[in-house]
Amino acid sequence: MSEETDWAPDAGAALDSGGFRDDDGRINALWMERLRAFLEAGRADDVTTVVGPLHHSDTGDVLEQLDHNERLALVRLMGDRFDFSALTEVDESIRLEIMEELPNAAIARGVAGLDNDDAVSLLEDLEPHDRNEVLSALPTFERLSLKRSLDFPEDSAGRRMQTDFIAIPPFWTVGHTIDYMRRERDLPDEFYQIYVVDAAYKVLGTVPLDRILRSLRGTPIESIMNTTLVLIDANEDQEEAARQFERYDLVEVGVVDENGRMVGVLTVDDMVDVIQEEADEDFRLLAGVGDEDVSDTTVDTVRSRVPWLVINLFTAVMTSMVIGLFNATIEQMVALAVLMPIVASMGGNAGAQTMTVTVRALAMRELDGGRLRRLIRREVVVGFVNGIIFAILIGVVTALRYGDVQLGAVIAAAMIINMIVAGTAGILIPLTLDKLKADPAIASAVFVTTVTDVVGFFAFLGIAGLWFGLF
Amino acid sequence: MSEETDWAPDAGAALDSGGFRDDDGRINALWMERLRAFLEAGRADDVTTVVGPLHHSDTGDVLEQLDHNERLALVRLMGDRFDFSALTEVDESIRLEIMEELPNAAIARGVAGLDNDDAVSLLEDLEPHDRNEVLSALPTFERLSLKRSLDFPEDSAGRRMQTDFIAIPPFWTVGHTIDYMRRERDLPDEFYQIYVVDAAYKVLGTVPLDRILRSLRGTPIESIMNTTLVLIDANEDQEEAARQFERYDLVEVGVVDENGRMVGVLTVDDMVDVIQEEADEDFRLLAGVGDEDVSDTTVDTVRSRVPWLVINLFTAVMTSMVIGLFNATIEQMVALAVLMPIVASMGGNAGAQTMTVTVRALAMRELDGGRLRRLIRREVVVGFVNGIIFAILIGVVTALRYGDVQLGAVIAAAMIINMIVAGTAGILIPLTLDKLKADPAIASAVFVTTVTDVVGFFAFLGIAGLWFGLF
Repeated sequence: MSEETDWAPDAGAALDSGGFRDDDGRINALWMERLRAFLEAGRADDVTTVVGPLHHSDTGDVLEQLDHNERLALVRLMGDRFDFSALTEVDESIRLEIMEELPNAAIARGVAGLDNDDAVSLLEDLEPHDRNEVLSALPTFERLSLKRSLDFPEDSAGRRMQTDFIAIPPFWTVGHTIDYMRRERDLPDEFYQIYVVDAAYKVLGTVPLDRILRSLRGTPIESIMNTTLVLIDANEDQEEAARQFERYDLVEVGVVDENGRMVGVLTVDDMVDVIQEEADEDFRLLAGVGDEDVSDTTVDTVRSRVPWLVINLFTAVMTSMVIGLFNATIEQMVALAVLMPIVASMGGNAGAQTMTVTVRALAMRELDGGRLRRLIRREVVVGFVNGIIFAILIGVVTALRYGDVQLGAVIAAAMIINMIVAGTAGILIPLTLDKLKADPAIASAVFVTTVTDVVGFFAFLGIAGLWFGLF
Repeated sequence: MSEETDWAPDAGAALDSGGFRDDDGRINALWMERLRAFLEAGRADDVTTVVGPLHHSDTGDVLEQLDHNERLALVRLMGDRFDFSALTEVDESIRLEIMEELPNAAIARGVAGLDNDDAVSLLEDLEPHDRNEVLSALPTFERLSLKRSLDFPEDSAGRRMQTDFIAIPPFWTVGHTIDYMRRERDLPDEFYQIYVVDAAYKVLGTVPLDRILRSLRGTPIESIMNTTLVLIDANEDQEEAARQFERYDLVEVGVVDENGRMVGVLTVDDMVDVIQEEADEDFRLLAGVGDEDVSDTTVDTVRSRVPWLVINLFTAVMTSMVIGLFNATIEQMVALAVLMPIVASMGGNAGAQTMTVTVRALAMRELDGGRLRRLIRREVVVGFVNGIIFAILIGVVTALRYGDVQLGAVIAAAMIINMIVAGTAGILIPLTLDKLKADPAIASAVFVTTVTDVVGFFAFLGIAGLWFGLF
């Protein structure tokens, strides 16, 4: 029975606590209420009874729902029974908030029980001084292995890797390998393949577990191993690694250092998080919200958003100066001021559409060779076609509203120009940023709207001025 | 030395064809040139020699880079040597384009060699008539298993599942199980766990492969199986299934029908694609570009974008009518027309920031209970603080530019109002759509900018009219 519990799958543990999530997958409100009551009353054992059996990912969700004091109460009341891997599942701001309040000795005890990759993701956020204090409180072997991971650059494969893996020599048989695994107590928690290495820990091949199970005991490992290898450099960016997982449907991959020595493995569950984060990042960058979390403080949020708004203020003032050039024109015909935002707004939206498609295609590396030329051509044509469609629509509406066919023709002409410009800018701006090695998601939006605003106002007011002889 | 090359670290099979990808991970231009020459010359064997060894994901990338005629030439020249699973890796429009040109008999031969989930994803795009013709050309067992999967709703777990899996009775030992796997020829290609089922195929437990390898031959399977199970209903939406994978770090999970009978398995590689698509979808919906691919035709692209632009035209006209209310005011003071887009644009951007954070938090199910209240409060406060900051900035700039402190005060007041409204609308609009069971990504952007435009223009022109007594 106790063995049963040992083997209990993390994933299922949530189910043990009965009614933890409702049908929509949200945490049960009654469950939370009970936990809050226990926390308030300081009933450490009851807190442990309800939180203890949860999967660390569920514990993370619970922490995110609690407020600052409740979170600290939970961690303090559970003490050494708190599973620190839950901290890898919460927003960075919450993680830091909790770790700052805990004594380094408590962090060291918590980190000691974690997988290498989880421990690294907690330690990398700490101040250097605290980090060193925690590290020096750890057993030698763990300290060295964590230090080694932390030496790799931020967001590299080396930071995300798990350093426990099974490496065997090529001359073993399937039988040897199975016996070794039955005997050895110090195996990784979960693994999907075995690595065949030479004496210098250079990887010679990999063997998926199912292949070992299908082969007879006498089969030499060398004869069943994969020799066309996918290996990832520990210094490589985690996004690049995630792209390999996605492209080749990988579940686990070996990580090697600059000398080709195997130092760890990356597993797909960590890469899923990276893929999610990457898509999210583009999303946020386009809107200028940096790497904000919903649990960030007001001050952090203001700080993260102001720079983007300042840039927008500059471009808005610039746009306004373009309008200012036509002061006299507007004075003679106020209808122009009323209509001009329509041209700018339509251009802005069309530009955003093209830009979104381009930014995502760049992020997914979909724009090789011929596809790029086709995409540019298509976007310009789409801009032209949409320009015609909306020129007719707005032209007719304007002519009817003001009983002035000429005004309708002017706005129609401006619309066609701005829609073509929108399509062109929507694709060329992100492409140029990409060529300049800047992240196209970060600055495209502001450039594209500036272009469509300026061109929209300029074309409309300019054509009107010429047409009606208002200059 | 040649052995060295075989094992060089980077995407497996791709290497066999020598320099298939360059350092940036893009397909080598020279490689493509050579392939194009072979295709043009109709050299079937050479085409097969260079494309054959590629991973199907790489073949998919190659297909995407070719133009329409080259794609067809490739598939026709390779004939039965073409791996149809490459078609699961290309944009839907390209997939359909190729399948439409192929005779159904050729599709049937190609599909017969595929895993069940890949076959389903090709067949589900076909017209019912073609689909039935392909199905009836397949061997009975495959036909029935595919039909069964196709009976599940679109985008359900049942459509994405693999129907090959290993199920054993609970009374077997580890030894029995290993012997069975050594003996049985008809096993799935790759698998990560074994399912323990009763006579009615109801799942009793799961055993990860590493656990079998660590246990002695005499160990009863029942004593080492996981009994707290995560199972997915075949009718469940694939996004919900993907969320489970993400939350619980799963690699493989059993799929059961409405009677609790095990019918298949989902693996993490398919879920990675779903996670990617889901994030992507929100991204595209916000910009109003639907589920476009970069390889869509011009006509499809126009068709997908026009509806969004029509909505935007309506709201732009509405906004323009709000400005029209202040015709007389603008006539008396043209500076208002020059300045008004600044207030609207700043509000639009601030609103987009809040909206982006909210839409993503809703998609990730991060807004349970207390966090929601905190987020609303934070966004309103952030709007107020940013309002003050930018009110001062633009107020000073305006006062200096026009030498008119009063005009500066008016634009400052309008800015504060619009920034608070932006924060409030940016969070309440997606929340309301979510409550109404609409996808908040799809319509939030247009509502939020309409609100910030209308309020921006109205507040600025209205305050100016009152202040300067222009009504």
